[in-house]
Amino acid sequence: MKWTKKQRQPKLQERIKEDPFITDEALASLFQVSVQTIRLDRLEMNIPEVRERIKDVAQKQYDPVRALPEEEIIGEIIDLELDKYAISILDIKQEHVFSRNNIARGHHLFAQANSLAVAVINDELALTANAEISFKRQVSAGERVIAKAKVVDIRRNRTDVTVESFVEQSLVFEGRFSMFREDYAEGGE
Amino acid sequence: MKWTKKQRQPKLQERIKEDPFITDEALASLFQVSVQTIRLDRLEMNIPEVRERIKDVAQKQYDPVRALPEEEIIGEIIDLELDKYAISILDIKQEHVFSRNNIARGHHLFAQANSLAVAVINDELALTANAEISFKRQVSAGERVIAKAKVVDIRRNRTDVTVESFVEQSLVFEGRFSMFREDYAEGGE
Repeated sequence: MKWTKKQRQPKLQERIKEDPFITDEALASLFQVSVQTIRLDRLEMNIPEVRERIKDVAQKQYDPVRALPEEEIIGEIIDLELDKYAISILDIKQEHVFSRNNIARGHHLFAQANSLAVAVINDELALTANAEISFKRQVSAGERVIAKAKVVDIRRNRTDVTVESFVEQSLVFEGRFSMFREDYAEGGE
Repeated sequence: MKWTKKQRQPKLQERIKEDPFITDEALASLFQVSVQTIRLDRLEMNIPEVRERIKDVAQKQYDPVRALPEEEIIGEIIDLELDKYAISILDIKQEHVFSRNNIARGHHLFAQANSLAVAVINDELALTANAEISFKRQVSAGERVIAKAKVVDIRRNRTDVTVESFVEQSLVFEGRFSMFREDYAEGGE
């Protein structure tokens, strides 16, 4: 059963409030209307598009990346608290997929996660020592991957970072990265 | 103590026979002469350069890659026996390193190994399910990474591949990749 615009708009607003990362495509399929209808609803209710919402949710002023120049990060950092957590988004384009089946190549999802694990470290030097990773679901061209890194353990010169990457609400990649860093006691601030 | 050319050349020839993957740079440091001297020695003794030697060592006719178009492989395949083993080389260039310290970024070593793990599978479809990887030594611009993949376990639709990557004789990366494939019973041939 479809709702009228009047019924739909408050529910839409509520849904976006619950999950600011939800895309117009996902909302369209949820409410069984076209993407265009969702866009018009958003315009009428003055709700920005998902990329802007993600940035709004993120801290307005996130910490500056220390371990590498920000332009060397694969994906776009949208939130970061050094030695705590970081979030980045990567839009999967034609250049990221296998030509044969349109599925994103593992090393791009790995690169997004790994560079986020480097970026979250509060040190001038951070290198990956080892990692256990898992590809949970195929990702296709056109999808947006949101990676969330969390620092889970800081020892003297080793820091463990977990990264979970999502498309919409579904987990597509997870990894645990063990990172070398300069001595935390000296390097941390 | 330095050798004369007459003393050096037979030893050089022997060393290259023992390890055809050794570079001119490594030979130069071993024999305490310049790289140019090594090149001249090789010319005089008619020994091809390392890349050619690697290709000579490899099967002249290696199996055709099935799981992806060969140009989508990161690195250059120099030997391959489907569902058995594969070897590729990747020359680390400026575009592969962190600008700050000239160290190769992990995701490039990962990409070489992972695409080799895909390439070795004798199937039209091969996707990485999960991996445990380890970065053993830093790799710098100018170094050549030789990755060796070995199929260690084939089950119904899962195949495990180990990859070890070397610069000269030293291990720089190792990983164990668990690959999805179409049903081996049907897909294998």
